[in-house]
Amino acid sequence: MPKLLILSSEIEEYRKLIQQANLANLKFTDQFNECDIVLGEPRVIRENLTQLPNLKWIQSMYAGVEALMDPSFRRDYVLTNARGVFGELMSEYVFGYLLAHEKKIFRRRQAQQAKKYDRFESGWLHGKTIGLLGVGSIGAHLAGMAKNFGMTVHGFTRSSETSQSVDRYFHPTALESDSLLSFASGLDYLVVVLPRTEGTNQIVDTNLLNALPPHAILINVGRGNAVDEPALVDALTQGKIAGAVLDVTAKEPLPDDHPFWRTPNLLLTFHTSAISYPEDITRLFIENYQLYVEGKPLKYQVDFERGY
Amino acid sequence: MPKLLILSSEIEEYRKLIQQANLANLKFTDQFNECDIVLGEPRVIRENLTQLPNLKWIQSMYAGVEALMDPSFRRDYVLTNARGVFGELMSEYVFGYLLAHEKKIFRRRQAQQAKKYDRFESGWLHGKTIGLLGVGSIGAHLAGMAKNFGMTVHGFTRSSETSQSVDRYFHPTALESDSLLSFASGLDYLVVVLPRTEGTNQIVDTNLLNALPPHAILINVGRGNAVDEPALVDALTQGKIAGAVLDVTAKEPLPDDHPFWRTPNLLLTFHTSAISYPEDITRLFIENYQLYVEGKPLKYQVDFERGY
Repeated sequence: MPKLLILSSEIEEYRKLIQQANLANLKFTDQFNECDIVLGEPRVIRENLTQLPNLKWIQSMYAGVEALMDPSFRRDYVLTNARGVFGELMSEYVFGYLLAHEKKIFRRRQAQQAKKYDRFESGWLHGKTIGLLGVGSIGAHLAGMAKNFGMTVHGFTRSSETSQSVDRYFHPTALESDSLLSFASGLDYLVVVLPRTEGTNQIVDTNLLNALPPHAILINVGRGNAVDEPALVDALTQGKIAGAVLDVTAKEPLPDDHPFWRTPNLLLTFHTSAISYPEDITRLFIENYQLYVEGKPLKYQVDFERGY
Repeated sequence: MPKLLILSSEIEEYRKLIQQANLANLKFTDQFNECDIVLGEPRVIRENLTQLPNLKWIQSMYAGVEALMDPSFRRDYVLTNARGVFGELMSEYVFGYLLAHEKKIFRRRQAQQAKKYDRFESGWLHGKTIGLLGVGSIGAHLAGMAKNFGMTVHGFTRSSETSQSVDRYFHPTALESDSLLSFASGLDYLVVVLPRTEGTNQIVDTNLLNALPPHAILINVGRGNAVDEPALVDALTQGKIAGAVLDVTAKEPLPDDHPFWRTPNLLLTFHTSAISYPEDITRLFIENYQLYVEGKPLKYQVDFERGY
């Protein structure tokens, strides 16, 4: 009989939602040595990873599972992460900030507060080109929404070309920087949707920022490791790009003395762009639980070598 | 041979664009007594309406043609307005401001400026209900975009039910206020997309504002006459609704002593939500010109009785 251990600050809510589903044969446990299934937050699971002798499957509540990726950690179980539930949330965030930029809503509010009847013109998403650095399930949702707004979509991915909404794909080549820089040079907006891996460290560096047009906006909804932060401070301070919106930073919470607090044209949103709603994650868990009891391959499996 | 008079501050640009189209037989004129066709801005045309002896067709550059609707004015010509070109622009504006509200982007920026690492939660468009007061070509585009964001769409119209993206239609009944108030009571957002007519004067009044839930947001991208402005000041001041975004006001420019300058939770954007781009309007004109020379009915005809 499968035994589930929940490792999360929201254990009561998850327990209630899963109980409502009346899953055949599933037993809840709070005993580490008893469970074969763990549902939880990667950082909480990491603390207990060595104490789970019967572990067969971990369902992560988050998309990011880097906390479990250290090469010294065990890999003798199936790890599945949360996928397909963040696309809508991320789309609202990304297009909300892009529209705020084009509609100049901060500047308009300032004009109003200064009692100025100032009718400066808005910019438009329509006709612009958005570049997605990473085209997984979130990137694919962003691509679809970009098409709804009449935009051109470029995607930079390691290999897959699964989204039909991407107009043009770019891939790493033998001269990786060439194709990345060529990808960047044609963009009005660059949106980073990469997982944290060795390969994504500081991929947004001085060269890439220099390749963007000066009116470009950078948005990072992936992980903070992807951005060379001093390079971004320089690019914004020198006006090499027009602005940046960062939901993630290399260190979170952002240290008090970090230069980002004083960098011009930078908006910080402190890792709030998408959250894991227990209803959504429970739906994923139930879907995979049914595959698990039938002995079928689980969905959303993480590849320990790739790291996502 | 058709003779076209252009009455607009952008005459040079329009002339160039139309010339590039090489329309058969079309002659440009600057003589009022010579032209049979006028392309222009309604307010400029109004000043010259009595001096056009050969007038057969006016193509308005704007959607709003109330400047030509006075019952004392001549109606012995075909009037066509600009339609189908503003939907995308209006969608960017409306969803930009709705997303800004849900993502709390003003409050997030304030937290950043105060150096507070504050992770308050965003709201979401997904699952919300938007009400469209008026479902013409702009309303239909807004409805489609709302569906892209996973919203429920209610539409209040006099008669037509042409948009497939509206989940539920409401119509004026013998007890008009009943169906309008029932429409309002279920909404998270109310977007006004009405033309200026006798029938739309102050349709957004105290009763309608009271019928909206207290978390509701009002957006007016139609005409200022639709809103009872003192009633809106009261509703916002007393927190009966959560906010309003007005692109239009009864008087434009907004008078210096108007209470809107000091009303809480009100954003003013001074008639900038959508503008008439000469490229778009020229495309409409050319489409209609070809029908005109073939003697066929023109598209986008205004009904002088309805006023739109």
